[in-house]
Amino acid sequence: MQHLSPHDVMTMFMALAVLLGCAKLAAEFMQKIGQPSILGEISVGIFLGPTVLGHYQPKVYETLFPTTGPMPIVLDTVTTLGVVFFLLTAGLEIDLRSIFRQGKSALLVSFFGVAFPFASGFLAASAFPNYLGAGAGASPLIFALFVGTALAISALPVIAKILMDLNLLRTEVGTVIISSAMFDDLVGWILFSFVLGMMHPPAGGSVADGVKHTIVLVVLFVGLTLTIGRWLFDKILPFLQAHTTWPGGVLAFIFTLTLAGAAFTEYAGIHAVFGAFVIGIAIGESGHLRKRTSEHIHEIVTNVFAPFFFASIGLRTNFAANFHLGLTATVIGVACLGKLLGAGWGARLGGMDRTSSLVVGLAMNARGAMEIILGILALQAGLIRESMFVALVVMALLTSLVSAPAIHFLVRRRRSLTLKDTVTAKLFLPHLAAKTRLGALKEMCEVAAVAVSNAPERLFRLVAEREHILASGWENELAVPYARVNGLSRPLVVVAKSAGIDFDARDGKPARLIIMILTGDNQSQHDLLGDASELFSHKEAVDQAVHASNFVELVAALNAPVR
Amino acid sequence: MQHLSPHDVMTMFMALAVLLGCAKLAAEFMQKIGQPSILGEISVGIFLGPTVLGHYQPKVYETLFPTTGPMPIVLDTVTTLGVVFFLLTAGLEIDLRSIFRQGKSALLVSFFGVAFPFASGFLAASAFPNYLGAGAGASPLIFALFVGTALAISALPVIAKILMDLNLLRTEVGTVIISSAMFDDLVGWILFSFVLGMMHPPAGGSVADGVKHTIVLVVLFVGLTLTIGRWLFDKILPFLQAHTTWPGGVLAFIFTLTLAGAAFTEYAGIHAVFGAFVIGIAIGESGHLRKRTSEHIHEIVTNVFAPFFFASIGLRTNFAANFHLGLTATVIGVACLGKLLGAGWGARLGGMDRTSSLVVGLAMNARGAMEIILGILALQAGLIRESMFVALVVMALLTSLVSAPAIHFLVRRRRSLTLKDTVTAKLFLPHLAAKTRLGALKEMCEVAAVAVSNAPERLFRLVAEREHILASGWENELAVPYARVNGLSRPLVVVAKSAGIDFDARDGKPARLIIMILTGDNQSQHDLLGDASELFSHKEAVDQAVHASNFVELVAALNAPVR
Repeated sequence: MQHLSPHDVMTMFMALAVLLGCAKLAAEFMQKIGQPSILGEISVGIFLGPTVLGHYQPKVYETLFPTTGPMPIVLDTVTTLGVVFFLLTAGLEIDLRSIFRQGKSALLVSFFGVAFPFASGFLAASAFPNYLGAGAGASPLIFALFVGTALAISALPVIAKILMDLNLLRTEVGTVIISSAMFDDLVGWILFSFVLGMMHPPAGGSVADGVKHTIVLVVLFVGLTLTIGRWLFDKILPFLQAHTTWPGGVLAFIFTLTLAGAAFTEYAGIHAVFGAFVIGIAIGESGHLRKRTSEHIHEIVTNVFAPFFFASIGLRTNFAANFHLGLTATVIGVACLGKLLGAGWGARLGGMDRTSSLVVGLAMNARGAMEIILGILALQAGLIRESMFVALVVMALLTSLVSAPAIHFLVRRRRSLTLKDTVTAKLFLPHLAAKTRLGALKEMCEVAAVAVSNAPERLFRLVAEREHILASGWENELAVPYARVNGLSRPLVVVAKSAGIDFDARDGKPARLIIMILTGDNQSQHDLLGDASELFSHKEAVDQAVHASNFVELVAALNAPVR
Repeated sequence: MQHLSPHDVMTMFMALAVLLGCAKLAAEFMQKIGQPSILGEISVGIFLGPTVLGHYQPKVYETLFPTTGPMPIVLDTVTTLGVVFFLLTAGLEIDLRSIFRQGKSALLVSFFGVAFPFASGFLAASAFPNYLGAGAGASPLIFALFVGTALAISALPVIAKILMDLNLLRTEVGTVIISSAMFDDLVGWILFSFVLGMMHPPAGGSVADGVKHTIVLVVLFVGLTLTIGRWLFDKILPFLQAHTTWPGGVLAFIFTLTLAGAAFTEYAGIHAVFGAFVIGIAIGESGHLRKRTSEHIHEIVTNVFAPFFFASIGLRTNFAANFHLGLTATVIGVACLGKLLGAGWGARLGGMDRTSSLVVGLAMNARGAMEIILGILALQAGLIRESMFVALVVMALLTSLVSAPAIHFLVRRRRSLTLKDTVTAKLFLPHLAAKTRLGALKEMCEVAAVAVSNAPERLFRLVAEREHILASGWENELAVPYARVNGLSRPLVVVAKSAGIDFDARDGKPARLIIMILTGDNQSQHDLLGDASELFSHKEAVDQAVHASNFVELVAALNAPVR
């Protein structure tokens, strides 16, 4: 029985540490510049893989990611677990009911958003299979079906992230987009399950047998899981929460089902990720699933296991050597055209105006995780050549990259302002000298006035007037005085800590944390007050900010409050 | 480059699903009967392994856990990740300062609790190496050192669990025990690192070189990580919380460091788990690590990844064929004698009375995860034979099994009563007919009276008197009337839901959930009132209970409230 040697174990941990550390570093950087984190994770993988590191430092590359011995199996194991768990969380986030609730618009966007790119991909691949990188010996029909599917599928997590960043998630356009993307994901995976079933006929059977076998099993699996399974999970969850340790029992139940679902779909002839996805949807539908349970899964999976997978994409091939400009440009062109036209036209038919329809098309055009997973499976199965795989990954990255700025340009929605982005070290007063309410306001206005070269008396008058109308003491030892200051070009937030000043709070407690908000417009004021009220709804969050001994700790309290 | 075939992927997910599902089922059962969950996880592994399943159903066993092809590597990968992550959480829970704070008693218990069993194990193994299962060709000195170490180490997680279950964790005896066990773990691992260093001399070097190499690297690693590293992590954590997504940035940081630490200690010549453990201690010391962050890690690791490892122990060998009664009895005898005498004597020297000292000895005697991990490493390295491995695992299981009942017998501490254990379906009234406070109390007393064949008037008089002195309305639409009822042999809890009855709550809101507590003694009353106040400190928890439409959902609300 073969086991891992100490050297293998060392290599494994080294490789995983490098992958995770670099991937998350790049992901955080991407998020800072307003791009989806997956772009960073994938780019780092390309850098660490044969394309850059393997090309310029082959020895280092071979030490970190040996291509012989047990290491490829070890990496395969970890990344397969990573992607299966990632699809579980994606499934948990899908809300079947909201898909149906959106009615006509979502249905039209979904339908045309799938049909157009599928048709254009299918036609292009049927006409030019070799130019589009069909694998040697791959069936032309299966290849054409694959290309159609790969171009039809959207990327729910990427789309959700973009809408969230642009403050569009809760708008009508946003809900239509999300509902359509969920539907797309489902349809895309079911299409792909047929492609995979055609690729792997059962031993001794024909292709037709393989498809029949896969279709019967997959339809049974999806049908039963989303009806009887869903009903059953909804009954079992409260039972588990009543009679087992919490959240341990529920977590083990979810992961056991996920692993079993993954094994079943793999047995049926399609990939394990599909089983995990469907199980995730069925469990996520239950009203008894606690937010906290899915939070544990979501945080560990998206921050630790998914990065292993996304970073490993770049390890699979040399993206420079296999890059073909013509092929890549064609794939990008066909993909974008089909999706923009299809989804946009669907939105128009659903009664949306021209700009909103374009926004829908652009959002649905963002690709990401899903087509890359499909691409990997097709590459492993010999259905496509490496050049087509590279083209698909580049297409996914590029469409994601373009989506956010393009939508931003069209809608010109501003992100909502947060305290975290507005506070500055200069406007943080860890030790307020004043002992009275008006004294404190005066002291804080003086600091603010310096920062904008304004007269402190004017600021103080405005704040004091506001304070006179309505006392600014909130609960939990917090006070939030604020005022509109005409002509102020950017919002000012002054944060001060005091031993306790009475601000006439409802709970009667003196304020130990005072956050003064001065804005030139109503929108910023609304944003910042809303952020403060959300951040400090718990006493613990105020305590954390009160205990901040320096500016970094204050920002930490505003960025990631204790909840 | 070797990859996992679809069949391998299916087998992998099937094997993991079976391991996790069975392990957690058994773990929950063990917890129900008051035993540590690890006993269930390990027993299930023995059942699924060569001992039972492999013996009676060799075909099923070979399908689930093939011993050829890539599957052994796949399982090795998952279980190695599992144990490394488990040691990370164990490290995070260790509190270096409390070890030093306990002073004399803890130091004496630690010292003698390590020295006695180490000496007796070392002497026994030196005298009878072959009888005690030394591997063929193993150095007698290294073998004796190993046996001493394996008997000296305690099992922090198991001990903590036992003390928690017996309500002893916050007592003086409990704190001494926990501090000593932490110290033991540290010393045991450092001892073991030397044993491992002696086992793996560097290529071309002598054993002495190997030890020197390992000792220098390990001392450097532990020394630097627990001083400069600890200081540095404490500075970096607030920075990450301020400038990266939360908790994603912190989680990725912790896991990257853990993987890197694991790789380094493996490189130094000792096992990866030690690096994860030390990194865990250093990060856990930071006051900036949020409870929520470590909770995410703890829940997913202990409920999903650690069970993979503990269940896999039983897959490694045939516990029936390799069971030698004489050897096992000797190991158990030497282990218990050394630990009981050593730790107990240390406690006596520290000034504890005879019973407390025996409790300390019994608690420290509980073994578990740690010696099994050591045993696996020694088995893989050929240092011990399978019979000794089986003896060590049986010893670990048996000492854990005996500890809790024995301490319980000595101390006769009762577990504190909880509402969850006291409510019954008969005493749950989902629709209260009464509309007034006294009417509600009367209705609930009538139900309670039937259950204990008591006069309802008497119960009502007692409850109403109590209500008259102090209204029982709590905040958040909850009322908790209660009374002492002399002669009541067991506590009664009646739970009723109403549309809203005024119970004179401080926040003025009418009660929608009424929990009546009737007890015959003060202690139960104190326990149940305390449990109610802890459970329902948040409005959400009351809402959850109010929305319970049947008894199972009510128990769920009492067992795992929304927080």
